[in-house]
Amino acid sequence: MPYFTLDASSLQHWLTNHADLASLLGGSPSAWTIREVSDGNLNTVFLVDGPAGSLCCKQALPHVRVAPDWPMPLERALYEARYMRATADAVRPAAPELYFYDDEMFLLVMECLTPHEVLRTALIRDEVQPGFSAVIGQYVARSVHATSWISQPFEHGSKLLADFAGNTALTRITVDLILTDPFRPCSRNPAPEADLLPDVEALQADKPLHRAVGNLQERFLTARQALLHGDLHTGSIMQHKDDVRVIDGEFATMGPIGFDCGLYLGNLALHACGAPHKGNLITAEITAFWNSFTADFRTLLKTGGGDVWALSDDVEREEMLNTFLHSILQDTTGFCGLEMIRRTIGFAQVADYTLCVTPESRTEARRKALKTGRTLILAAPTVHNLEGLLNLLTLR
Amino acid sequence: MPYFTLDASSLQHWLTNHADLASLLGGSPSAWTIREVSDGNLNTVFLVDGPAGSLCCKQALPHVRVAPDWPMPLERALYEARYMRATADAVRPAAPELYFYDDEMFLLVMECLTPHEVLRTALIRDEVQPGFSAVIGQYVARSVHATSWISQPFEHGSKLLADFAGNTALTRITVDLILTDPFRPCSRNPAPEADLLPDVEALQADKPLHRAVGNLQERFLTARQALLHGDLHTGSIMQHKDDVRVIDGEFATMGPIGFDCGLYLGNLALHACGAPHKGNLITAEITAFWNSFTADFRTLLKTGGGDVWALSDDVEREEMLNTFLHSILQDTTGFCGLEMIRRTIGFAQVADYTLCVTPESRTEARRKALKTGRTLILAAPTVHNLEGLLNLLTLR
Repeated sequence: MPYFTLDASSLQHWLTNHADLASLLGGSPSAWTIREVSDGNLNTVFLVDGPAGSLCCKQALPHVRVAPDWPMPLERALYEARYMRATADAVRPAAPELYFYDDEMFLLVMECLTPHEVLRTALIRDEVQPGFSAVIGQYVARSVHATSWISQPFEHGSKLLADFAGNTALTRITVDLILTDPFRPCSRNPAPEADLLPDVEALQADKPLHRAVGNLQERFLTARQALLHGDLHTGSIMQHKDDVRVIDGEFATMGPIGFDCGLYLGNLALHACGAPHKGNLITAEITAFWNSFTADFRTLLKTGGGDVWALSDDVEREEMLNTFLHSILQDTTGFCGLEMIRRTIGFAQVADYTLCVTPESRTEARRKALKTGRTLILAAPTVHNLEGLLNLLTLR
Repeated sequence: MPYFTLDASSLQHWLTNHADLASLLGGSPSAWTIREVSDGNLNTVFLVDGPAGSLCCKQALPHVRVAPDWPMPLERALYEARYMRATADAVRPAAPELYFYDDEMFLLVMECLTPHEVLRTALIRDEVQPGFSAVIGQYVARSVHATSWISQPFEHGSKLLADFAGNTALTRITVDLILTDPFRPCSRNPAPEADLLPDVEALQADKPLHRAVGNLQERFLTARQALLHGDLHTGSIMQHKDDVRVIDGEFATMGPIGFDCGLYLGNLALHACGAPHKGNLITAEITAFWNSFTADFRTLLKTGGGDVWALSDDVEREEMLNTFLHSILQDTTGFCGLEMIRRTIGFAQVADYTLCVTPESRTEARRKALKTGRTLILAAPTVHNLEGLLNLLTLR
């Protein structure tokens, strides 16, 4: 079926033509309820409920949903489907199941997550169950194990490079919006609050900072360590009680493992900037993430299986993993800093700042995020353990 | 035309069906002379002379030419064609022109290089014109400029990643023959001379060495800095007087720039191991390579043009290039060491050792190569300039 933009009625029709999916819903199409719940920047999302079950249907639009004059190739849905397939067995049950991908409609049909809510929203509403970040740490470690050169024959990584190298439309967003735009005057950057303008101008004139950002640009594009989610922020995670799921893998690319870690930790830290009284809670989540990530990383990767480190035994590999984790922590620190800055003054900002009740406190929160982000980017090569990162974050 | 293995007669017929190529040769097919000159390990090569001009025709075989029971996918010819097309404009005239690629016959038709000879052969015969390595240094810098993230929009590098990630059959050879086999008992390794056996056994039990090799395995597979030739040894270069040409790009892959540099310098150093009286000549060539490479690298890359370091100006970029060249030198040192070892005890050894007239001197030459290779691999992270590398090589 040639591509067209679905609405509730045409989606119902599409589903009736897909018997497996229709039988998951059960009953007759007239018994189904279809709600549009689009929330992210890029796609339309429908939740479909039937007598026997539910589905989540996500369709790519030919433009940015929140900026219709910004064209966006439909193929991103293909990369999300590929990402889900490449990681599903490793991360289950920490991601929804992909039931079907329609490569003409650029439509993913997935497990419906209800009554889950977006983690960022739950954090803002204080509705999280502490420790949720351990699941995310485990998720990243398991994704890495499924896709890295240390744990898989190099042909596997080569296939992933080939399968995801074409995802340039969304990688271009990362390169521009995270790695470049916030550090230069750019029409995509919203005008900052007047009080924040001097801080923004200082960041955009800070040559040592730009040099450190340049190193992170280089890491992002050259250090092809494993398959990344590529956009692992608190808006890409759904949760209900202790059920935590990662969604929205359309930014997937082979890249530095610390990029996924850094984006996640950056969004946690941003929440604490918006809600300073939650500094200890967020510090505990960052700790839970890192401890869970490193523990699972060591366990899963020490048995090898890949062409990298093939000459070493498990004991030696454990030592080598410690060195590797050290460099991942430094990447994590740098990318965390980038995320804090771009989510504060760049195109796609975060709702966590709505927790600040006065304009003054909001400016103060943003200023803290910018200052911390800059510190992290510059000091990343000097961080040697989690405590070092926590000290730079100054959330406690 | 479905694939079949060409001989002189069927190649003549094939050429008559390609009018552009036939007219380059001139005259009637009966006036053409066709000689098979296969020399490398993998392919058949014919030189065709006609009244008006000459052609070089290289066809992939479905197996390793020198080991017919080792199957080898034909697609490697496609990657060589892609490599030549991706680099031709940048490196001209330091590579032969590709006139035609037949993707069913896996046949490349190229500029014929006569009366050129293989650089390794010319070195062995003392028929080189000193300073030839400056051309190779320039070749590597120009290839990097055409393909790196610093000098090209990231979409260009992504296309190269996609175009070359499938070259797994030949990358498997690199991973096995260069990065792994020499350091473990392996049926592909020829039995060493009895006198050398203790040295080989020591290398294969050397855990700190294996750890350093592991780091180089990781660099090779994860540090996707630019498009590599992938097999840049003195047998992949043709020369006649001051005309120096790089051939045989079928191992092309995105990888660490120091890999191409290291393989080339390793083969120069191996020559000096086989001919110790030429230590100063080889040292001069290594110096010419590195000086030419770094000078052109700085000039070409400092103007940027890529997404990496996009925030920095030319002056800052020049400083950043120095740091980058430092890390390339360390990679170069490590890969140089790997090449010296694998060409001494691995599957594909070098003819330079035939310069040793006695069995004792040959063993001594090989022992020196193994010892130097090991030193380079272990000391690579401590090398800070060319002089440091030359000191480790001890060729002077």
